[in-house]
Amino acid sequence: MGYKTYLELIMPLVEGKTLISSGMTQEVDRVEAAINTALAGKTCAIVSSGDPGIYAMAGLALEMCQRRSLAIDPARFADSAKDSGAGLRIEVVPGIPALGAGAALLGAPLTHDFAAISLSDLLTPWNVIEARLKATAQADFVIVLYNPKSKRRKNNLEKAQQIILQYRKASTPVGIVVGAMRANQSVQIVSLGNLHESHVDMQTTVFIGNAATITYGDFMITPRGYTNKYVL
Amino acid sequence: MGYKTYLELIMPLVEGKTLISSGMTQEVDRVEAAINTALAGKTCAIVSSGDPGIYAMAGLALEMCQRRSLAIDPARFADSAKDSGAGLRIEVVPGIPALGAGAALLGAPLTHDFAAISLSDLLTPWNVIEARLKATAQADFVIVLYNPKSKRRKNNLEKAQQIILQYRKASTPVGIVVGAMRANQSVQIVSLGNLHESHVDMQTTVFIGNAATITYGDFMITPRGYTNKYVL
Repeated sequence: MGYKTYLELIMPLVEGKTLISSGMTQEVDRVEAAINTALAGKTCAIVSSGDPGIYAMAGLALEMCQRRSLAIDPARFADSAKDSGAGLRIEVVPGIPALGAGAALLGAPLTHDFAAISLSDLLTPWNVIEARLKATAQADFVIVLYNPKSKRRKNNLEKAQQIILQYRKASTPVGIVVGAMRANQSVQIVSLGNLHESHVDMQTTVFIGNAATITYGDFMITPRGYTNKYVL
Repeated sequence: MGYKTYLELIMPLVEGKTLISSGMTQEVDRVEAAINTALAGKTCAIVSSGDPGIYAMAGLALEMCQRRSLAIDPARFADSAKDSGAGLRIEVVPGIPALGAGAALLGAPLTHDFAAISLSDLLTPWNVIEARLKATAQADFVIVLYNPKSKRRKNNLEKAQQIILQYRKASTPVGIVVGAMRANQSVQIVSLGNLHESHVDMQTTVFIGNAATITYGDFMITPRGYTNKYVL
């Protein structure tokens, strides 16, 4: 089960399998179908891109099991006395999250404390997002922005930029990664002050440096420490 | 090049290779040796556990190149006109970070905005760490704590617990993952109020739920949205 684009990326792996697939907006229906398939006794995999546990389908799948009061057991209980034996066995398989893939392409922006914030206000009110941007900008986190822009939300990234500029210099390095590790991959390092001029789309992850983040050549680097405990 | 424990985990992969290895505290010396090996014309891999870009060696390696003013090129420039051809070619290979592996074992605690904070005050002053704990607790982030305890730092986790309790209920779910995906793996879900009674060591990652995080059976779940835009 998965969004069409993701299943197409792994076609050789799913050949000969029954596929449950549909457009982006029918997520709930697809997860419902996957759960029903599993309840009917078949093994069913829900496929996400990146890591299924980070802003992705693992949460929705478990939420729906909970709302339906289904008995579920974690896969780590398999062959142990803890396994109820009566429930669906659910395993979340971690993957490389977009924040990890993007950071690797940029250099090392996440060597120190960071926060991940989605700019999508579809399921979260904008005032909550705004409070999170302020709190983490002020406390000097590296900030990773997920869902910076979509067709419906054109201005959230610029609003975020203006909020962060209240606490950080315009020269702060910002990494912009589109389609990490895919055919359309593009990687750019700009400054916070110029962020609004950059190409950003739905497949983009944005990395805002903290006060110590530097660029060196084509790399973005956040040093590990504030002190010079170790001598380089 | 790598810390002994990590190289031992991948022995079959490094058979017949020259190994640069030493104890935990000589990180800088080992990275120096790795860079010198690469400058001498050999391909050299620096091995971390988890993701090398998240609180790990990618940052130190790049920092040291910068301090030595070495010419470096990102591997993504290979075979493109952007490659200077004159510098060391550096590639950061992403891996599954501890926060991703731990989240997968717990269920789906990271389906919404989260912050990663290291409690190690070796390279970061405690007042900075404290400000970050306060900011993210108040702005309702799921909080992932790295380096919660070591032989030298016995009380930082309890101090963090007390700070977060000022903003969150004692019943808030907390996931404790030791040695994710390794032989000594252990996974526990406790409440924030009881966190200080749990076994936590250097190989532990701690996941503090946000105000919406629930437990269901043996799973920890953070719902995706605050509204009920989608009907389950």
